[in-house]
Amino acid sequence: MENNAINAIRFLGVDAINQANSGHPGIVLGAAPMAYKLFTAHLNIDVKKPNWINRDRFVLSAGHGSMLLYALNHLSGYKISMEDLRNFRSIGNTPGHPEYGHTEGVEATTGPLGQGISNAVGMAIAETHLAARFNKPDFNVIDHYTYVICGDGDLQEGVALESVSLAGHLGLGKLIVLFDSNDIQLDGKVSLAYSEEHKKKFEAMGWQHILVEDGNDLNLINKAINKAKKDSNRPSIIEVKTTIGFGATEQGTSKVHGSPIGMEEAEKLRVTLNWPYKKFEVPTEIYNHYRKKVTLRGQRVHKKWNQMYQEYQNQYKDEAQLFDAFVKNDDQIDLTSLEDLSQAKDEATRNVSGKVLQRLSQKHLNIIGGSADLTASTKAKGADGNYDRDHRLARNINFGVREHAMGAIVNGMTLHGGLRVFGGAFFVFSDYMKPAIRLAAIMHIPSIFVFSHDSIAVGEDGPTHQPIEQLAGLRAIPNLNVIRPADASETIAAWKIALESKDTPTVIILTRQNVTNYEHTSYEGVLKGAYIISKEEEELDGILLSSGSEVDLAMQAKEILKEQGLNIRVVSMPSQFAFEQQTKKYQKQVLPKRKKILAIEMASSMPWYKYTKDVYALDSFGASAPAEDVLKVFNFTKEAIAEAFLKKTI
Amino acid sequence: MENNAINAIRFLGVDAINQANSGHPGIVLGAAPMAYKLFTAHLNIDVKKPNWINRDRFVLSAGHGSMLLYALNHLSGYKISMEDLRNFRSIGNTPGHPEYGHTEGVEATTGPLGQGISNAVGMAIAETHLAARFNKPDFNVIDHYTYVICGDGDLQEGVALESVSLAGHLGLGKLIVLFDSNDIQLDGKVSLAYSEEHKKKFEAMGWQHILVEDGNDLNLINKAINKAKKDSNRPSIIEVKTTIGFGATEQGTSKVHGSPIGMEEAEKLRVTLNWPYKKFEVPTEIYNHYRKKVTLRGQRVHKKWNQMYQEYQNQYKDEAQLFDAFVKNDDQIDLTSLEDLSQAKDEATRNVSGKVLQRLSQKHLNIIGGSADLTASTKAKGADGNYDRDHRLARNINFGVREHAMGAIVNGMTLHGGLRVFGGAFFVFSDYMKPAIRLAAIMHIPSIFVFSHDSIAVGEDGPTHQPIEQLAGLRAIPNLNVIRPADASETIAAWKIALESKDTPTVIILTRQNVTNYEHTSYEGVLKGAYIISKEEEELDGILLSSGSEVDLAMQAKEILKEQGLNIRVVSMPSQFAFEQQTKKYQKQVLPKRKKILAIEMASSMPWYKYTKDVYALDSFGASAPAEDVLKVFNFTKEAIAEAFLKKTI
Repeated sequence: MENNAINAIRFLGVDAINQANSGHPGIVLGAAPMAYKLFTAHLNIDVKKPNWINRDRFVLSAGHGSMLLYALNHLSGYKISMEDLRNFRSIGNTPGHPEYGHTEGVEATTGPLGQGISNAVGMAIAETHLAARFNKPDFNVIDHYTYVICGDGDLQEGVALESVSLAGHLGLGKLIVLFDSNDIQLDGKVSLAYSEEHKKKFEAMGWQHILVEDGNDLNLINKAINKAKKDSNRPSIIEVKTTIGFGATEQGTSKVHGSPIGMEEAEKLRVTLNWPYKKFEVPTEIYNHYRKKVTLRGQRVHKKWNQMYQEYQNQYKDEAQLFDAFVKNDDQIDLTSLEDLSQAKDEATRNVSGKVLQRLSQKHLNIIGGSADLTASTKAKGADGNYDRDHRLARNINFGVREHAMGAIVNGMTLHGGLRVFGGAFFVFSDYMKPAIRLAAIMHIPSIFVFSHDSIAVGEDGPTHQPIEQLAGLRAIPNLNVIRPADASETIAAWKIALESKDTPTVIILTRQNVTNYEHTSYEGVLKGAYIISKEEEELDGILLSSGSEVDLAMQAKEILKEQGLNIRVVSMPSQFAFEQQTKKYQKQVLPKRKKILAIEMASSMPWYKYTKDVYALDSFGASAPAEDVLKVFNFTKEAIAEAFLKKTI
Repeated sequence: MENNAINAIRFLGVDAINQANSGHPGIVLGAAPMAYKLFTAHLNIDVKKPNWINRDRFVLSAGHGSMLLYALNHLSGYKISMEDLRNFRSIGNTPGHPEYGHTEGVEATTGPLGQGISNAVGMAIAETHLAARFNKPDFNVIDHYTYVICGDGDLQEGVALESVSLAGHLGLGKLIVLFDSNDIQLDGKVSLAYSEEHKKKFEAMGWQHILVEDGNDLNLINKAINKAKKDSNRPSIIEVKTTIGFGATEQGTSKVHGSPIGMEEAEKLRVTLNWPYKKFEVPTEIYNHYRKKVTLRGQRVHKKWNQMYQEYQNQYKDEAQLFDAFVKNDDQIDLTSLEDLSQAKDEATRNVSGKVLQRLSQKHLNIIGGSADLTASTKAKGADGNYDRDHRLARNINFGVREHAMGAIVNGMTLHGGLRVFGGAFFVFSDYMKPAIRLAAIMHIPSIFVFSHDSIAVGEDGPTHQPIEQLAGLRAIPNLNVIRPADASETIAAWKIALESKDTPTVIILTRQNVTNYEHTSYEGVLKGAYIISKEEEELDGILLSSGSEVDLAMQAKEILKEQGLNIRVVSMPSQFAFEQQTKKYQKQVLPKRKKILAIEMASSMPWYKYTKDVYALDSFGASAPAEDVLKVFNFTKEAIAEAFLKKTI
């Protein structure tokens, strides 16, 4: 039966990929046994309650093996029909790579290598933290494993190496990675590009390494998983030696990695692997087998957990209430509690942000995060001390100089549920984590990224540390709310929006230098993306449109222009994303057509041409000198801006 | 004397950082001895001929320690005056982080961690390749080491981990990394975020690891460097245990990492370290010492090399000629030799690109590069087989699934000189290597990045593999020529431009799918960034402006509009970067003001608003399905575009 059950996965994969005439059969054929064993003997999930908070997490980091996951999820009883499998890689329920929020039972959107395993590290961190907060003697409210299947390619990616390093450091004992070690990658043998001693390397990084020499031996796989589970102090990697495209004529070569094997070959394979069934045919006894081994077993575990949790609610009423709130995760941020902070006098927005975060963290215990070795600079610091293997309840995570892993781990923790997670770095280093930010946007999850040192006003550190094109690059990402607040009120607003967001990640972009506080900046304004912060006194002569610290310059330039008798409006536009979602009416109200508009930002001009043809921006790299000197070099002074307004637009 | 000579570095650093009131004294104080030993006893450079091709390369990967480098380069006789040191971190010769091309003796722009060490891997690869091509018995025309000083932070970065992994695999024996192991990083102790066994890990990755337990012991350092040099089969990392901020009151803590120690503390330090000299005072005997140990020693080595090379020119005339051409590096690409390729019929531009590259590689032996495990897909493949430890002459580099390292290694090889280097990946994975692409642009080096699978027409692989905002993000980088060719002729042109570029990196963006070839596409047009490929027949009714595969759609839409009696011009804009450099006159000629223009691109709309208010683009993520279905879902059809032109603009 087991052999047949594994073949069911394999042939659903082969058939769907053939049908789509596109996909990756190699991993499905090779890794089916380990995935089978994991699902049927270990993974605790409830397919009828796919969001059960204490389910085991399973991440297919090798996302190109999506059919492995779809086949298993179909057989296990998730909402993936046989029709869905037939429509693999067509518009519908079974896209080419697994997409979180799109297909049931997919815990993370994967495909770009290294991301899934890093998300899993985040999930495992979340598990330890929530367990520390909520578990009581005899009540393990949170107590689950995080499983991963990854391939050789995953383990070559820097983001994975960073995450793996951190996971070892943090002693994430309940993280178990099944490594589909088949010695083949897209371009051929792994040995073309890689020749490390896995065991030695992983042990050096604080992991348990377990070798399974035969990836078809279910007993060995099972033993290895059990051994992995037993080591509660170290994450485990189970290196399972497999044959890519197992059973196919060209098994063991890169030819079976990324192309359908074809109908003829599929028929041969049916003979080789002893699978007498037709395309997309799965006998009832196999469905029954999965029902028993995955569906019902998981539901029993969930039921037991429910009983336990009921008793927990009785005995630990407050904790249970908090737990429910964590799981529900719809805290509202009370602005009145932050009112004093909005009165900050000439303070850098990174400082305001730090204070807001500190304040909110006291009230909202689900806020957790940290910085990539720049805590002192970004002020993006979690509460309650440093999270580590001995302090799971602490909420400041020292990510190390691992920006990319931080991004993916923030995503993973957010995906886990129960927490509001942020990661901080210098804005220029957002480049290092771009792929993770993009995935947050694709996944529609409310990850929070906090970036300080947001312009050439960084000063002395020079061009390598001065963002120019980063605002354009991030603003161009669909479904990403990039907020660049002008002052304290807008910074507070940014945090409220970020923490209340349901399905949009937020990037908060902060100054290193002090900024002036303005009377008319507001949460409501930030929520709308752009708004008038200084209204013209008589008939409008023109608009200065800006964001962040340059709103200050706009306000000053306005004064100069006023002296010249001009009626100038100043519009703060902290979020182009939010502004684009407003009604046309509101948009025209703020930025009337056929009015002179000068957009001002110390960064790439690109994002502003949508709103005006006159842009005062910076399309070259910065320079190293004290901030005031750099600003002068690049003509970011009130006088220059006033002059530009007069010259360019009148 | 040696102690004083080291103190000279330390106090130039401390004084300059105090003067600037900004900078990183910790590494200068801690790492001065190893840097001193390296420069005075090992590093072969000729400060009067800083571009001597066979010099040893030295990369300060921990770029925040710029004063360490500036002090040493000043003492060694490079063009860095005492005045420059006094002006540290002001507009001038000594920016906050070392900038290649800006300050003499700086081999790479560093600061963003992990990049420098990865550049160095590239330099070491270049060395082995050039040595294999040009060296003859008794004539080691290319025979030098590549040295690095890096810190803990560098070794936490994914890009470094990828590069280190590849360096071990490739057995780069002449790469020697001095690891300033001081157990401190910005946020505090390294142990907050990191706890690996260095030796074990590096050995697992194929490196020699050498521990120097006392970073002030010059003898131990010297022995270690000698030992490193002796192992010609493995790169070496010398872990030098140091004390950050050595001698300062707060030595050994993160407090001395990134802030000036102050004047008072500097005076105390003068006593502690026994340095009786004033601020910025260096006694003549110390200059003499450096002159003898670095300047003259290096010049002697260079002189000997010159003599040897003269003899080489006699004995190996052809090789010497080729060598000179490599060093000069100004090959011109002959278009006539590629004419047949421009006649490609309905071919994907990635295929054309692959053929062009193959053809040119035969003639231009300095072309080298490869892909990040996507060679078969990107067609960005080097000639002459796979480069590896046993095949140094081969020109295809298997970078593995290490996009970011690839970017930084391409930069490092380009920085080395003598080669034209490319790296290829799927366009969406340009995100993984963004920091390296940015640095190529900052450094003004002609790295070449080749990205295929450039739009939602990727099809089945779905949103994670379909670029949307990548064009905007890259086009916003200053000094980066992003070329998205429409057809075979434009692809050929892109390669010619890339290979002839002197100080601008080029990104070539290619289709997965077939495209039509057009009669009027041309090299001259691509060189200008945008040009008319289909002229209106009578008075102009409007313009369809596009790039890449969408030029095809524009041409088809034009036909529909023509049937409706409209005179439409089609403009291909493969490079906004190049177009921006044209005269206003030319720009207006191509895109006359007050004419209806519809810009069309299957990607973020952002880059196009500069040219028109009417943009037909895609500001959402894609979908997984066959390409033609995806295009239909997102309305990228000739009919929809013709309709949009009529609706939006008339």
